[in-house]
Amino acid sequence: MRPSGRQPDELRTIRLTRRFTKHAEGSVLVEFGDTRVLCTASVEESVPGFLRGKGRGWVTAEYGMLPRSTGSRMGREAARGKQQGRTVEIQRLIGRSLRAGIDMEALGERAVVIDCDVLQADGGTRTASITGGYVALADAMTTLMERGQLKRSPLHGQVASVSVGIYRGVPVLDLDYPEDSEAETDMNVVMNDAGAFIEVQGTAEGHAFRRDELDAMTTLAESGIAELIRHQREALEAS
Amino acid sequence: MRPSGRQPDELRTIRLTRRFTKHAEGSVLVEFGDTRVLCTASVEESVPGFLRGKGRGWVTAEYGMLPRSTGSRMGREAARGKQQGRTVEIQRLIGRSLRAGIDMEALGERAVVIDCDVLQADGGTRTASITGGYVALADAMTTLMERGQLKRSPLHGQVASVSVGIYRGVPVLDLDYPEDSEAETDMNVVMNDAGAFIEVQGTAEGHAFRRDELDAMTTLAESGIAELIRHQREALEAS
Amino acid sequence: MRPSGRQPDELRTIRLTRRFTKHAEGSVLVEFGDTRVLCTASVEESVPGFLRGKGRGWVTAEYGMLPRSTGSRMGREAARGKQQGRTVEIQRLIGRSLRAGIDMEALGERAVVIDCDVLQADGGTRTASITGGYVALADAMTTLMERGQLKRSPLHGQVASVSVGIYRGVPVLDLDYPEDSEAETDMNVVMNDAGAFIEVQGTAEGHAFRRDELDAMTTLAESGIAELIRHQREALEAS
Amino acid sequence: MRPSGRQPDELRTIRLTRRFTKHAEGSVLVEFGDTRVLCTASVEESVPGFLRGKGRGWVTAEYGMLPRSTGSRMGREAARGKQQGRTVEIQRLIGRSLRAGIDMEALGERAVVIDCDVLQADGGTRTASITGGYVALADAMTTLMERGQLKRSPLHGQVASVSVGIYRGVPVLDLDYPEDSEAETDMNVVMNDAGAFIEVQGTAEGHAFRRDELDAMTTLAESGIAELIRHQREALEAS
Amino acid sequence: MRPSGRQPDELRTIRLTRRFTKHAEGSVLVEFGDTRVLCTASVEESVPGFLRGKGRGWVTAEYGMLPRSTGSRMGREAARGKQQGRTVEIQRLIGRSLRAGIDMEALGERAVVIDCDVLQADGGTRTASITGGYVALADAMTTLMERGQLKRSPLHGQVASVSVGIYRGVPVLDLDYPEDSEAETDMNVVMNDAGAFIEVQGTAEGHAFRRDELDAMTTLAESGIAELIRHQREALEAS
Amino acid sequence: MRPSGRQPDELRTIRLTRRFTKHAEGSVLVEFGDTRVLCTASVEESVPGFLRGKGRGWVTAEYGMLPRSTGSRMGREAARGKQQGRTVEIQRLIGRSLRAGIDMEALGERAVVIDCDVLQADGGTRTASITGGYVALADAMTTLMERGQLKRSPLHGQVASVSVGIYRGVPVLDLDYPEDSEAETDMNVVMNDAGAFIEVQGTAEGHAFRRDELDAMTTLAESGIAELIRHQREALEAS
Repeated sequence: MRPSGRQPDELRTIRLTRRFTKHAEGSVLVEFGDTRVLCTASVEESVPGFLRGKGRGWVTAEYGMLPRSTGSRMGREAARGKQQGRTVEIQRLIGRSLRAGIDMEALGERAVVIDCDVLQADGGTRTASITGGYVALADAMTTLMERGQLKRSPLHGQVASVSVGIYRGVPVLDLDYPEDSEAETDMNVVMNDAGAFIEVQGTAEGHAFRRDELDAMTTLAESGIAELIRHQREALEAS
Repeated sequence: MRPSGRQPDELRTIRLTRRFTKHAEGSVLVEFGDTRVLCTASVEESVPGFLRGKGRGWVTAEYGMLPRSTGSRMGREAARGKQQGRTVEIQRLIGRSLRAGIDMEALGERAVVIDCDVLQADGGTRTASITGGYVALADAMTTLMERGQLKRSPLHGQVASVSVGIYRGVPVLDLDYPEDSEAETDMNVVMNDAGAFIEVQGTAEGHAFRRDELDAMTTLAESGIAELIRHQREALEAS
Repeated sequence: MRPSGRQPDELRTIRLTRRFTKHAEGSVLVEFGDTRVLCTASVEESVPGFLRGKGRGWVTAEYGMLPRSTGSRMGREAARGKQQGRTVEIQRLIGRSLRAGIDMEALGERAVVIDCDVLQADGGTRTASITGGYVALADAMTTLMERGQLKRSPLHGQVASVSVGIYRGVPVLDLDYPEDSEAETDMNVVMNDAGAFIEVQGTAEGHAFRRDELDAMTTLAESGIAELIRHQREALEAS
Repeated sequence: MRPSGRQPDELRTIRLTRRFTKHAEGSVLVEFGDTRVLCTASVEESVPGFLRGKGRGWVTAEYGMLPRSTGSRMGREAARGKQQGRTVEIQRLIGRSLRAGIDMEALGERAVVIDCDVLQADGGTRTASITGGYVALADAMTTLMERGQLKRSPLHGQVASVSVGIYRGVPVLDLDYPEDSEAETDMNVVMNDAGAFIEVQGTAEGHAFRRDELDAMTTLAESGIAELIRHQREALEAS
Repeated sequence: MRPSGRQPDELRTIRLTRRFTKHAEGSVLVEFGDTRVLCTASVEESVPGFLRGKGRGWVTAEYGMLPRSTGSRMGREAARGKQQGRTVEIQRLIGRSLRAGIDMEALGERAVVIDCDVLQADGGTRTASITGGYVALADAMTTLMERGQLKRSPLHGQVASVSVGIYRGVPVLDLDYPEDSEAETDMNVVMNDAGAFIEVQGTAEGHAFRRDELDAMTTLAESGIAELIRHQREALEAS
Repeated sequence: MRPSGRQPDELRTIRLTRRFTKHAEGSVLVEFGDTRVLCTASVEESVPGFLRGKGRGWVTAEYGMLPRSTGSRMGREAARGKQQGRTVEIQRLIGRSLRAGIDMEALGERAVVIDCDVLQADGGTRTASITGGYVALADAMTTLMERGQLKRSPLHGQVASVSVGIYRGVPVLDLDYPEDSEAETDMNVVMNDAGAFIEVQGTAEGHAFRRDELDAMTTLAESGIAELIRHQREALEAS
């Protein structure tokens, strides 16, 4: 039934390639099927003005799509001098989500910027960004511990994300682009490894969804994220 | 328990004042307690480029806060030359929500802009904007019918919105600013008059929320929106 | 002769509603007939860089029109990323005019921002803004005295403003939109309560005006402003 | 009494050098003493969108100061990405003033842009710009007639401008920078060769000015502009 | 002598990976040692305004660095709302260089945009961009021929680029970042496969360079580019 | 053969008028034939952030064209809110070139801004800007010495620039606009008075150039710059 032949509750092939580039404290290429996002974590020994002198750290995210990561070329945001509303929305979501997994006082007065740049898009770039961004953040924390700048990791839980939706009347997990562009409802869910919710964003595209559909999508997301949490753990345990 | 003395499932005093200003096709002052938003609906006999010649209409929204609608003055976005991320996010939400209540082919090749300008903020400005914006949109449709530009209303359902959250461990309805700034979780829900969901946006502020909390908040939103739908109907039925 | 049936030297109905919103140190809704402007005065305990450490204060103004305050919708300046030339001109005029009524050393090293947001436009928004902005400024000074931050008011005179023009060959006072859009000459005058001039800005729209017309308009403005000064005083004396 | 030793009613040395640069249809270097402004008039065979197809022309102006035209270097507006409020105000004034001297229907559907670039500033750059801009505009009209694009000149009157002010209690004509920075009141007046007023902009800098001071300044401007009109005529009559 | 142990006339390891992403008409990952740039060629069936209706095509380039492609994170240009001067300079160079290899009339009225996005920087990103961008352009032309939109390739020569410089007194080929940041002189050369020059840009960083040094660098560039031309040919001949 | 009748190795008439305006520490009108650029040098007693506290100075340049310095009017960059790529490229070149002639430690912690504003363009504005900018910089250094702010000049060499190109198959010196717009190759060369190269920027416009053409152009530039160096010296030796 799904264009890809997947089962309704089946994720795409997930790959998390650590140390994809050499400069960043954390650098992860995350792949959800054909969606490929390069997530880097950059540590800066200063915080934004509103936090200065408070002994607390900060995590923020920026998101971008390479102009030809998509089927038809999109204008380069740097050239137009403006980030689109969609971009702003997504990078705010990624930042909020990852901040939910870290203890800002344990991080200390430093900032981590998670850059999520989409090399190839095929649906689900924001959920891939959160899932891969968490791994980059974890690697950056390890780097700080190895350098002796942190005694213990300020992370207090894993964070991962997946999309769910109603596609041709059926709740499905991890929509790819052909599904996403046709789905009646699309919901992005962010959870931690304790099975609790960090963010739920559901939007009716075609027709409004009923309470039972909301519940079914939520349940599907719970199982998908549990699997992504395992993928993250395996990637981080590999040397 | 709540700073305002309200019950957990109690809305603030809701007021919908139609024809608040004289130029717009629809002009509504919506009040959720001390939150006051002026919503105007402006009809333009043209559509954005991507819709031209397709016989379909468009509804979009813009949102702004007067600089001193808040406790401390915010910089004017027009003077800074840029809308904030939060503004962009909110106006996209308002537009998407209201588009879910209207048949674009029945609207015909014209655009409606819903401007939501916050005169005074006390929490819940986006849910008030959607709820009041719908009434302004309905008035604009009536204006078009009175002018003979539309035979029948293209609206196929009412749209209203409310926030719910976990405040000091208890699920509460329609948070005001003192609650909002302290809540552990905040969720904005948009529904139609058939009891179906148009948008669900839940964010863990303090700690991640459990599935049972998500379910309790959703249920609370369902009852609150049903009441807002009645307020809208009464306002629209008044002459 | 005038579209509104007013006498040439007759003001529109003037209303000054204090405490229109609750957050600002001064908040006044000013109405010149159907023109309605919300003027708020916000006190900030710092001054622009060029004044720092000099023991002197500053008053500045910002002006905006809600997109549908006018007959046809104007683009939102925040969305276009730029204030129009007209906006810049008007807010500079409001700021200069109000600074003429206050002793900057007595104000001390703090800034007051007067925000003038037009809810409904029907001609004369800049003169209404100055007239209402003065009352908001006065309320903010009272607030500072009540809080014990100022011993005495730094205001040394009232400031009010009105437009005059040549409409169908006759000098008239306080033009509304139908007159303004047809007037041959339009002049905005700002004066203090000692009957002296703070600003005179006359523009020939249709044909250049003669010296005797200039003199007649000036005389008309003197009497109109005297009346506005009385309105301000009454509003401020009310509890 | 005046720093320059001039009489109260004495203009600075006025020079109008036509054909100062070779590309523009009109190119005039105007000097009011040490104030030097290059005014060019550029003809374009199209009009702004709001005038298209109406058979009428348009005249607009742009103003700029070279960064080191002043005593201390000002930031380059092109580099900052924004024109200052003062710049916008001045170029709107120049445009409005020159439009008052031309018949837009006789001009036909074409636009003239008057660029006024200040090479050296010593007070009165806006009045010099208007006075020199008129001569550049006149030369551009002659060019169009010589090319056979216009049968007769669409100009129906000369336009010139001068500043007047109250300096140390005395009304003076054509203020230079040392006077301008100390003057209690500054007024810019634009008139035509019929002795009628096009624009009057008076601002109290130090103290508000009385009606008799306003009248004295106006009278002084009348005589100064009459003299500038003669300078323009002589310059235009020279080959 | 060189930090990498290379001979003065030795290129870094060159890799050209075609079809690196799936959406673009041409997509090449170019590696000059640790410098990795993703070059995509996007074909659009329209041309910029100044070329419309002339039957000629256009090739343009855009360049960007991912924020953490470098040792310390650079601000994202899209977020700052402005491309840096260096970015503008580089993308103009890439565009000019690639236009020199193509017959615009044979291309027909369509545009090709070459996007060069630096994933990892280690010196020479602009020369890698030109060298890889040519291969992406060639693949895009093949795509157009396969689709039947072009009968024959409009390319009339290969284009490649390399940097040369004076490092510790010795002319060296293809500088990496440690060399580049210390070099006294840096020169970027673009040539075609006929051994002729398209662009020469030499800059003295430390001390001005003598004529004999200029000649030695030029000779070094000639041999390096000949080798890059072979790499391009081999990559394009592989299936 | 050349449109101007000049010999291939003949410069246009060169004029360097010092003290062209009165405010700047150095102010030079440079003329290369009909190309006229006003170069001012402004000294500021502070340096950009990245140099603060290091005891070293800085020289930077800004470039602009008056809108009607050219045959058809160009949009004003300040009004468009953006400098063009070409402008950015040129001002970076001017700044780099002049920095090569000055000892930053001897200059001390102060900045010099060289503003190059084109009053009339006829080809070669960037080379004229560098050549005239050097004279303005030298005058500014003299001003600092006269004021006792510098003991000795921090300049360690003269800097001048000229263009060379291939025009109708022949290498020519100092191209004017008719040549420049038709040239097959255009090269800008910057050298010092020791005959060494500071910058070489050659671009094939029509067809790629051979090594022997590159060598011939370089030789032509060497002789032209030697002559410009003499012009600078004579201008600076005049009182």
